[in-house]
Amino acid sequence: MSTIDERVSALRALMNEKGYDAYIVTGTDPHMSEYVAPRWRTRAFISGFTGSAGTVLVTKDEAILWVDSRYFIQGAAEIQGTCFRLIKLDIDNNPDTNTYIEQTLPAGSTIGVDRCSISISKFNELKERFAKRNLILADSDDLLEPIWEGRPAIPESALRSVPVHYAGLTAADKLSKVRAALKEKGADYTFIASIDDVAWLTNLRGNDIKCNPVFMSFCLVTMDKAYLFTSPSRFSEEVRKICEEDFIILPYEEAYSLSRYVSGKAYYDADRVSMAFSAVLDNPDSIKGRDITTDLKAKKNEIELRGMRRSHLMDGVAYINFLSRLNTEPDGSLDEIAVSDLLEKEREKLEGYLGPSFNPISGFAEHGAMCHYSATPESSKKIDHDGLLVLDTGSQFYYGMTDITRTLCFGKPTAEQKKDYTLVLKGHLALARQIFYKGTKGVQLDILAKQYMWQAGMTYYHGTGHGVGFNLNVHEGPMNVSSRLVDVPLEKGMVISDEPGIYKEGRHGIRIENLIAVDDYVKTEFGEFMAFEVLTMVPYEKKLIDLTYLDDSEISQINAYHQWIREELSSLVDEDAKAYLESATAPLVR
Amino acid sequence: MSTIDERVSALRALMNEKGYDAYIVTGTDPHMSEYVAPRWRTRAFISGFTGSAGTVLVTKDEAILWVDSRYFIQGAAEIQGTCFRLIKLDIDNNPDTNTYIEQTLPAGSTIGVDRCSISISKFNELKERFAKRNLILADSDDLLEPIWEGRPAIPESALRSVPVHYAGLTAADKLSKVRAALKEKGADYTFIASIDDVAWLTNLRGNDIKCNPVFMSFCLVTMDKAYLFTSPSRFSEEVRKICEEDFIILPYEEAYSLSRYVSGKAYYDADRVSMAFSAVLDNPDSIKGRDITTDLKAKKNEIELRGMRRSHLMDGVAYINFLSRLNTEPDGSLDEIAVSDLLEKEREKLEGYLGPSFNPISGFAEHGAMCHYSATPESSKKIDHDGLLVLDTGSQFYYGMTDITRTLCFGKPTAEQKKDYTLVLKGHLALARQIFYKGTKGVQLDILAKQYMWQAGMTYYHGTGHGVGFNLNVHEGPMNVSSRLVDVPLEKGMVISDEPGIYKEGRHGIRIENLIAVDDYVKTEFGEFMAFEVLTMVPYEKKLIDLTYLDDSEISQINAYHQWIREELSSLVDEDAKAYLESATAPLVR
Repeated sequence: MSTIDERVSALRALMNEKGYDAYIVTGTDPHMSEYVAPRWRTRAFISGFTGSAGTVLVTKDEAILWVDSRYFIQGAAEIQGTCFRLIKLDIDNNPDTNTYIEQTLPAGSTIGVDRCSISISKFNELKERFAKRNLILADSDDLLEPIWEGRPAIPESALRSVPVHYAGLTAADKLSKVRAALKEKGADYTFIASIDDVAWLTNLRGNDIKCNPVFMSFCLVTMDKAYLFTSPSRFSEEVRKICEEDFIILPYEEAYSLSRYVSGKAYYDADRVSMAFSAVLDNPDSIKGRDITTDLKAKKNEIELRGMRRSHLMDGVAYINFLSRLNTEPDGSLDEIAVSDLLEKEREKLEGYLGPSFNPISGFAEHGAMCHYSATPESSKKIDHDGLLVLDTGSQFYYGMTDITRTLCFGKPTAEQKKDYTLVLKGHLALARQIFYKGTKGVQLDILAKQYMWQAGMTYYHGTGHGVGFNLNVHEGPMNVSSRLVDVPLEKGMVISDEPGIYKEGRHGIRIENLIAVDDYVKTEFGEFMAFEVLTMVPYEKKLIDLTYLDDSEISQINAYHQWIREELSSLVDEDAKAYLESATAPLVR
Repeated sequence: MSTIDERVSALRALMNEKGYDAYIVTGTDPHMSEYVAPRWRTRAFISGFTGSAGTVLVTKDEAILWVDSRYFIQGAAEIQGTCFRLIKLDIDNNPDTNTYIEQTLPAGSTIGVDRCSISISKFNELKERFAKRNLILADSDDLLEPIWEGRPAIPESALRSVPVHYAGLTAADKLSKVRAALKEKGADYTFIASIDDVAWLTNLRGNDIKCNPVFMSFCLVTMDKAYLFTSPSRFSEEVRKICEEDFIILPYEEAYSLSRYVSGKAYYDADRVSMAFSAVLDNPDSIKGRDITTDLKAKKNEIELRGMRRSHLMDGVAYINFLSRLNTEPDGSLDEIAVSDLLEKEREKLEGYLGPSFNPISGFAEHGAMCHYSATPESSKKIDHDGLLVLDTGSQFYYGMTDITRTLCFGKPTAEQKKDYTLVLKGHLALARQIFYKGTKGVQLDILAKQYMWQAGMTYYHGTGHGVGFNLNVHEGPMNVSSRLVDVPLEKGMVISDEPGIYKEGRHGIRIENLIAVDDYVKTEFGEFMAFEVLTMVPYEKKLIDLTYLDDSEISQINAYHQWIREELSSLVDEDAKAYLESATAPLVR
């Protein structure tokens, strides 16, 4: 019996004790985080599948893993030799987990799910849905806990305080804003489970999740007090002193005794708070809505924007030095990982650099066509022939964050590659230059990035733009730019990515990504208009631009961008990178 | 005491009898129609206000009319000398009707509303909202009925049958499609209150509402029967025979005895069915959703599309003859009404022409800047100086419908007028030529029409595109193209308008409108793509095009469109209009 099968057996024994006919493992943490710390990699523990998305269902006689197309191959490989079977999502009319439960479990069955691993809104929705088929959804204890020997502890990395000259607002300022919003909503307190929201509100940063400077915590804000639930042992004396000016620090687990600290009407985000808090929060008097901090955090203040600009200037210096050095490497000597390592080496020299903001994507040739490809020492492809490399990386700084994709051309490009690159670039430029009416939402802008490739029968399936945090998570809501009907207008200070792409399976991938910030532009007799400020400072790959697809104004837009980069960076890059910067930013001419 | 005040007094007496503290007059008909027959112009009857939108509230001591900005002036003028006062919407933080009720009526008050004048969804939403303030919303009898002497009768214009060679599908075909959808939804019957849906389903047309060939009716479709509730006296022997092949004809009022005819699970559109049917339909077993017929009707079949094309060809002939004649009228001899009459005269010569599809808009100079301007004999402006004329008109044919706006230039245009026209035209062309991924919604395409004027700090506040019926209503859902987040993909066969504009108050208005039909375009490795087919066949106003704002591909797009018009129409227009057609469609050259 494999280890996995033993674990499933142990789980079934516990299910039997509790009277559950099935048990769902969602794989998320008690904060509904996108990235989870090892302690909450429950899906991997029970099934062996290590991917970032998927659902596990264990019944009395079945163990099933659902994955989407990103993980069809990896999922199948990782569960091989275990009692698990794979169901592929969005293909062959396969049922998803919930539909499968409805179709196969007899009426009267009880399905358990760890109450810390599912949001209040999802649980309620599912409970109601199952009830129609006479199935009972139960909010369960974590049944993996008793069987998980050597389970990683709740992380408690040391905390640092973000000074106001980086954050722009003190924690006290931020608490006032939250309380003003609470007052307007007619609520008495708010409970925040989203860990990047807590980090923003407290002006604290940790290191609990790789690349994301967050820390496991909850926050409760009442009209006169603020409580931070996180391990007290992670504070230095200095940071504790700063924090205690505004917050009462209590142990992380104490959050689960929330009822002791609250009275009156709650405001909370039912999509982010887990079922473990349902008894206290989910009552008819409460007001549900997006975390107040999520909206505040998205609109960067002037100081944060200054830090974001500085981050991009620094990142631009490292990138130019890297590209210049890349040019001098002997042909065929590099592989995918060596390329991203070379860039990382340059970034490590930067003042205030903290590390990558996410796992770098470096995909050469056909690997570039795999959107979620991440090179491993085994897969890392040698760059020993002509081809394109998609390089999607980012930096965390004390004073901001970057996220940039450039597609680099090794050797000679084909006409098809140049056409594809130029169509992606046209869309990327169109979004960045668009002036838009105040109140415009991302879904309205999305087509700007797609319009040219659509004319050529091509598209991409990921979003065009996501929000980006200030020395926080690289994916940050509530706004985005995509085909999804997200009812959030783009507002002054929001920072989003602009990253269209084209991916041709087995051939090549192309993505071009800058970060852009929303700013006021002009007020006319028709109303107020907004515009984007481009933050990223790295030239496009001129070898891949086919001028016949560009009109004069697009060429001017590129030349102006390159000129700005040259002027800003020429005195900052290494001496031996100056010639490269000159040539990479020299004007395009027909 | 004015007549209006007498009516308000009489209403108050009835309110008192019923125990109502307030009474709302919505001004809609029992079918939630956009345009209502004189019988249901209740808002005008009680307040004297004749505009197309507004709400009336009568309390024990107040009589209030709410109107939006279109009607600030007209509303104030029409209620002058009565007991009514005006509240302007969307200005000065004025409360709307419901907020006003919440703010001013004491707890425990009862507010009546004619149950035939409000949809089930609106009533339920409002009832719940009022309940929170201890206010009671009551579904009332129509209290205007007893006091309305000489109230117009329910219209019962004669019906005609649309033959299958125009409709493409027989009523039996359509009933099968409705039943297939009902089966899929797990419902046993559907009740349809939307009168254009009934007209589509029955392949019948009437003349109950000006410009809309609909007839007052309800329809009930069960799995084996179909009932049409409409005045039996409106059928000729021939039409009755055709109709009775598929429908049991019952009197209009008999619909209110719906419970006699139904059993099992209902499917119905709670936004379109009035509260009068709530007792039968609104129960937990029922399924609410958009009328099945609304989705079917929106996707025109091949025969309908052929008829739509023919309609536009015919309309193009009339328009060219009209424009050619307009050119020969002595300077200063025309006014706004004379222009639209001249066009109407040409349309009346067309085979199969039934009349206008809506009240023509003909607005010269500053009148063109008023989006909803409709010339009256008093307001009709003489065209005796240089200026632009916005001419928005449409035709009903036995075999289809048109809706077209052209902006005509009298005399010499200014540089500003040419710039504005060309920016509108660029947007209009960009939407028409866009190829788009299957599943794309209107809100995603909206910016294509706005992108260029936004760059210049200009915009418009109306939608970019609305659905258009087949010899039915000129505004038809469920899809549209606008900034609203409407979750309806554009599908093959849908016909929509493409009508951006710029309106400068007191100066000039510009709008350019074609109808375009959605079609499949190409299937690639990336998926399926759709494209638009342009239906409208009238040249743009070349005098107003400033070539410096157009790129070469836009000029080619215009030239190809004009060439197509010339080739299609040259043998069909009047002899004396041929030279005009030639010159109006001659290629643009830089």
